[in-house]
Amino acid sequence: MRTRPLKVALLGCGVVGSEVARIMTTHADDLAARIGAPVELAGVAVRRPSKVREGIDPALVTTDATALVKRGDIDVVVEVIGGIEPARSLITAAFEHGASVVSANKALLAQDGAALHAAAEEHDADLYYEAAVAGAIPLIRPLRESLAGDKVNRVLGIVNGTTNFILDKMDSTGAGYQEALDEATALGYAEADPTADVEGFDAAAKAAILAGIAFHTRVRLDDVYREGMTEVTASDFASARNMGCTIKLLAICERAGDGRSVTARVHPAMIPLTHPLASVRGAYNAVFVESDASGQLMFYGPGAGGAPTASAVLGDLVAVCRNRLSGTTGPGESAYAALPVSGMGDVVTRYHISLDVADKPGVLAQVATVFAEHGVSIDTVRQTGKDGEASLVVVTHRASDAALGGTVEALRKLDTVRGVASIMRVEGE
Amino acid sequence: MRTRPLKVALLGCGVVGSEVARIMTTHADDLAARIGAPVELAGVAVRRPSKVREGIDPALVTTDATALVKRGDIDVVVEVIGGIEPARSLITAAFEHGASVVSANKALLAQDGAALHAAAEEHDADLYYEAAVAGAIPLIRPLRESLAGDKVNRVLGIVNGTTNFILDKMDSTGAGYQEALDEATALGYAEADPTADVEGFDAAAKAAILAGIAFHTRVRLDDVYREGMTEVTASDFASARNMGCTIKLLAICERAGDGRSVTARVHPAMIPLTHPLASVRGAYNAVFVESDASGQLMFYGPGAGGAPTASAVLGDLVAVCRNRLSGTTGPGESAYAALPVSGMGDVVTRYHISLDVADKPGVLAQVATVFAEHGVSIDTVRQTGKDGEASLVVVTHRASDAALGGTVEALRKLDTVRGVASIMRVEGE
Repeated sequence: MRTRPLKVALLGCGVVGSEVARIMTTHADDLAARIGAPVELAGVAVRRPSKVREGIDPALVTTDATALVKRGDIDVVVEVIGGIEPARSLITAAFEHGASVVSANKALLAQDGAALHAAAEEHDADLYYEAAVAGAIPLIRPLRESLAGDKVNRVLGIVNGTTNFILDKMDSTGAGYQEALDEATALGYAEADPTADVEGFDAAAKAAILAGIAFHTRVRLDDVYREGMTEVTASDFASARNMGCTIKLLAICERAGDGRSVTARVHPAMIPLTHPLASVRGAYNAVFVESDASGQLMFYGPGAGGAPTASAVLGDLVAVCRNRLSGTTGPGESAYAALPVSGMGDVVTRYHISLDVADKPGVLAQVATVFAEHGVSIDTVRQTGKDGEASLVVVTHRASDAALGGTVEALRKLDTVRGVASIMRVEGE
Repeated sequence: MRTRPLKVALLGCGVVGSEVARIMTTHADDLAARIGAPVELAGVAVRRPSKVREGIDPALVTTDATALVKRGDIDVVVEVIGGIEPARSLITAAFEHGASVVSANKALLAQDGAALHAAAEEHDADLYYEAAVAGAIPLIRPLRESLAGDKVNRVLGIVNGTTNFILDKMDSTGAGYQEALDEATALGYAEADPTADVEGFDAAAKAAILAGIAFHTRVRLDDVYREGMTEVTASDFASARNMGCTIKLLAICERAGDGRSVTARVHPAMIPLTHPLASVRGAYNAVFVESDASGQLMFYGPGAGGAPTASAVLGDLVAVCRNRLSGTTGPGESAYAALPVSGMGDVVTRYHISLDVADKPGVLAQVATVFAEHGVSIDTVRQTGKDGEASLVVVTHRASDAALGGTVEALRKLDTVRGVASIMRVEGE
């Protein structure tokens, strides 16, 4: 074994960073044995240097992250600050000064992954980011390496623990959205401002990263259709149960039917209770991957949290250190397929639509005609009514989102349709 | 991209080998893009050269596998013959003649993994074998690489599809073992001689491989305790259901309580219906991994079959080719921890014991005394009886297998105990 240590600079020492530092210290011998050389924490960049950090030598702590990444003797920079800046500038500077980078930064990778990969390649450095998607769950490496000889057709996953906690709570207790969110906040599963989670921004960043790797195609954050889950109601859960389904916020990356284009989207959807994703409880994450040869694979585990995310960071750190010792780099960006990324209109799926309608003869015929005129085939209709009010629940066969959108627009114009109570996609069949 | 192709020799062209050859042909452009150089099928060693093999140039087919691996121009040998010989000699010869090896051979890896890894290292070659455990499910790579910065404490898995199909059938239809086996055979899930599957030999080989990687310790096939599932009865399933459990054949690799030794075992066990492994149906495989930092992860997918196994082989082939192009090798054997492997007596778990007893006062007191004398604490007892016959179902708290063995031996000597109807371990809690 080499005795000269590899030097690691840690940017950020919050929930994840402090766990990374702790494990680097407590498991130093194991890490050295697995890497083939010791690793040394050479510096820790923080915002508040006065805060006491158990187990971290105060002499290593600095507020000057830029000087740290530019020292020139750093082998690997671990970035767990999050957000776009200063993370982006620091990572770029790290490459320019000879370091490889391990990052947990989904927002940055989703927005600037291509440029960062190019910078890494230019400087013969590694950029690894297993921790950016689904915390501890090995997902980037299996997609990029284990499935490198296969053709991935679909990635379907629960990649946000906060929203899964809320939806699971609504499903199991009948609570409304606000009540379930309040509980998630009280328990620390939701942040004070939950927008990034509940509006699907966090999941959309992960979908962009996953789609890019799965399809060997650059998928930008803007390419991802995004719909949050704040409008899911207890009544939607009741409708789902009637269909033998539950509701999950899903990130879905798919090849289009002809395989010539791909789509990526995040929205709430009904999935059958028999689907393995339906039984993913609480704040857990799980990702289903469908490929030509391997069939259906699922990866399940804790999608967030200090220790689980640190586990993913450290797995990358070991890999990057090994690469450095053998003078090579791991797989970089693979975007050779360069498939066009289609918009939501081209997505083909099934829909569950609840309509408030007038309770009189002929309404169903009118509604059915509108669906037919837009080429959307109906699977089932359920009609309930009393006191002049009635509701129609229509479940369609597979249709394009564009066709469904046209159908709904036309339905709203019918005198007999008083309102469209809800539209939800049905996935996982 | 390099234009000179990497040359691949395929040993075996059965269910898996023919899929490997097919995908190498149909996905040649994708493989070339992902590797950075084309890969060429340079030879296929088979036993029956006269058999027509669609899509394979007859000029590539040979019965002389030894000559093929010794050609000297082969970059990667893919071994999908199975069994110990001639696979072992061929793989060794491949290393000696400059090739790296991708293998799907669990029996060989479990028996001679250490020697083969040493041969690979001596010749600066790679030995990859993702396909040897749980077919398409990425498991070796996540354990070896993604969790390289974590401490794995337990691996608990369904790693044999045949036995899972049989047990699932018994559970869902109430069928007995033989009836369920007959159906598995008729559907092609069980071989004409099902011994390797139903007696747990196949799962034990996989357990040895998984334990070795998870604990960085050499675990030989002989170190794995093995009990088949041929004696599981419909009545055991009824007992399991009474406890809110089902029965699975599990491969279990664990650190002992003090972390200073490890155990590996394969046997049928009751697991709670709420455990994710309980809902693994049919011939699917799934493996639960528990680690210090990452918590509980699960990997799920098809554990066998031509195309899924080929997917795993090709993922390895891409990795080995990339390593070859960059003049390096991937992670080899990691056995630095060299923990002692304890026998079954040291395993600590819970037990479900059914006793046929005389239906008279004082029996329960006698039985409870025997448990107490052996230091085995009882969790619950259920007593049923009529017409002078009675049964006692005892579920214990956690106890060592040695203590439980002593208890059962003493119980058999009691006049009031007419027989020990069944003993089953309870896992996954």
